[in-house]
Amino acid sequence: MPKGGIEKFKAEREKLNQLVMKYAGREIKRFYSIDAQVYQDGALPAKTKELLGLVASLVLRCDDCISYHIIQCHENSVSDEELEEALSIAVVVGGSITIPHLRRALQSWDELRKTESLGS
Amino acid sequence: MPKGGIEKFKAEREKLNQLVMKYAGREIKRFYSIDAQVYQDGALPAKTKELLGLVASLVLRCDDCISYHIIQCHENSVSDEELEEALSIAVVVGGSITIPHLRRALQSWDELRKTESLGS
Amino acid sequence: MPKGGIEKFKAEREKLNQLVMKYAGREIKRFYSIDAQVYQDGALPAKTKELLGLVASLVLRCDDCISYHIIQCHENSVSDEELEEALSIAVVVGGSITIPHLRRALQSWDELRKTESLGS
Amino acid sequence: MPKGGIEKFKAEREKLNQLVMKYAGREIKRFYSIDAQVYQDGALPAKTKELLGLVASLVLRCDDCISYHIIQCHENSVSDEELEEALSIAVVVGGSITIPHLRRALQSWDELRKTESLGS
Amino acid sequence: MPKGGIEKFKAEREKLNQLVMKYAGREIKRFYSIDAQVYQDGALPAKTKELLGLVASLVLRCDDCISYHIIQCHENSVSDEELEEALSIAVVVGGSITIPHLRRALQSWDELRKTESLGS
Amino acid sequence: MPKGGIEKFKAEREKLNQLVMKYAGREIKRFYSIDAQVYQDGALPAKTKELLGLVASLVLRCDDCISYHIIQCHENSVSDEELEEALSIAVVVGGSITIPHLRRALQSWDELRKTESLGS
Repeated sequence: MPKGGIEKFKAEREKLNQLVMKYAGREIKRFYSIDAQVYQDGALPAKTKELLGLVASLVLRCDDCISYHIIQCHENSVSDEELEEALSIAVVVGGSITIPHLRRALQSWDELRKTESLGS
Repeated sequence: MPKGGIEKFKAEREKLNQLVMKYAGREIKRFYSIDAQVYQDGALPAKTKELLGLVASLVLRCDDCISYHIIQCHENSVSDEELEEALSIAVVVGGSITIPHLRRALQSWDELRKTESLGS
Repeated sequence: MPKGGIEKFKAEREKLNQLVMKYAGREIKRFYSIDAQVYQDGALPAKTKELLGLVASLVLRCDDCISYHIIQCHENSVSDEELEEALSIAVVVGGSITIPHLRRALQSWDELRKTESLGS
Repeated sequence: MPKGGIEKFKAEREKLNQLVMKYAGREIKRFYSIDAQVYQDGALPAKTKELLGLVASLVLRCDDCISYHIIQCHENSVSDEELEEALSIAVVVGGSITIPHLRRALQSWDELRKTESLGS
Repeated sequence: MPKGGIEKFKAEREKLNQLVMKYAGREIKRFYSIDAQVYQDGALPAKTKELLGLVASLVLRCDDCISYHIIQCHENSVSDEELEEALSIAVVVGGSITIPHLRRALQSWDELRKTESLGS
Repeated sequence: MPKGGIEKFKAEREKLNQLVMKYAGREIKRFYSIDAQVYQDGALPAKTKELLGLVASLVLRCDDCISYHIIQCHENSVSDEELEEALSIAVVVGGSITIPHLRRALQSWDELRKTESLGS
């Protein structure tokens, strides 16, 4: 993701989700609702759940899903070390075919970490 | 897909298919031929077959294949409701990892529906 | 699936679904509910939806899912020709890697068709 | 997995891993070593890492990998609620195609939980 | 695969392929024909092509396809070292999720190698 | 890949691999090392190994991985005919869902072949 990539990603995602809602019937709407619920704090903290979502997205190799969970991990105060360890598991489970997605995941993470230091 | 995306997609696809034919041996050519045949009217109408191709493409998460079948569904007079129900099945079978592709599928569909109303 | 395989499959599936419900929280229960809803009659008939579920299951290569939809297709009076055409699309989209699943799909279908003639 | 299934699974896995080592060259041996390392305690606890491995295995739909991580989760004192929440995320990300594997995951878990109460 | 597994596998595969032909229309028949053609000697020798088929089958994690290509590799005089190197690539590309299939691939290979020494 | 696409791809890949190394722990570094080793000359020549990597990448449908192995195949003097035969196997195993990636693979190959004739 190029500089400013995360803000563009969020805006595009928001716009297209509204388009989905224009066409969505009851089942897709309910699925969106479940999809939001499973990442809420529970027996497992939201932070752990975002790492679970990230690893699932990386082994399934979906860049948009990875970007989304990278942002959520950042908002849930995941550290560099925690992120790296979760990504290591994903790369070992999923193999070298995940590496292009690992690159882009860390590119997004690096952008978020830099923006953060600018804000301080 | 941005505005005008579908025309660009068709042109690019056509150009690259010609490049494939430049290199293709007998088996790839025969495979292309079978690939065209299975979507023809038969015991199942072409319209149903395009929905089958669309759902297969969505659960396998291939944007180009989705765009192609979205166009074919439109040409076979699939209604908004029929499309939405087929997409619901794909999203439930394939999970949230398909949602970014669902978004882009509906973006293409929305573009086709708008072009259509302009044409009337 | 060996002779009598379909009855055993149904019984095992039922037993394990009860086990899932023993552990399931609200989201998994809601997901099961959506999963049942998307195959109901609507703008598209249930028969077409079962074919969509079958093709999705074949390209994703899940034998249990294939067996389930083969049974549903049979109950929705899909003909041999309609089934074969849907399976052809799945095999062409998904490639030779789907062929072992195609074999088992037709084994289940053949068992259902034979049971049917015994019943007449 | 039928009763006693977990012990059989462990024995078969051990025997075949020895067969792998009979043929393995340096790279496969090193890969096995990395595969063991990434689940060790670090910035993230081993328990969280086993949940990450489980979710990755469920969305990729590998029964052997799921059984292995279910056993590891049990040995790392994952609770029923924590397991269920992790599995919910996997099912939502991966879709209904993961449900047959969810069933078998909970069958293994249920066996482990019962063995445990026998041991007390 | 247990002892005698390979002979059973071949017989079952043959029986089910006949069942496929009972239902198959023109496209599935043509697909079977292409599937046989692509592994014939050409610019690349059949031996290399079987290794390509094996690696494709391992990363896509299809046990039946792996067994088939393991047999073909054996018939094309692939050596232990060549097989191991091809499998290493598949494991690195596909990750630890392929390891259960690697185990079974080597189990089949080991059975074939032992049968061979019995035959001498 | 558009004209000049291969040079851009190489530069981007190099830059992001450096970013990976900034965050990578010991396991990811070791994985990168194994990933380089498995393609070295051994019982199988590097050329065959690159074809194995290409076919694995095509059936798993990863454009970056395909581009990388297409470049490596070109550097290892793979001929048009050898490439086409390897790609045919990948398309037959992986199905029509791989065709968009086949197109882009041949686009990269065609660019490399043209650059080559310019250089002579």
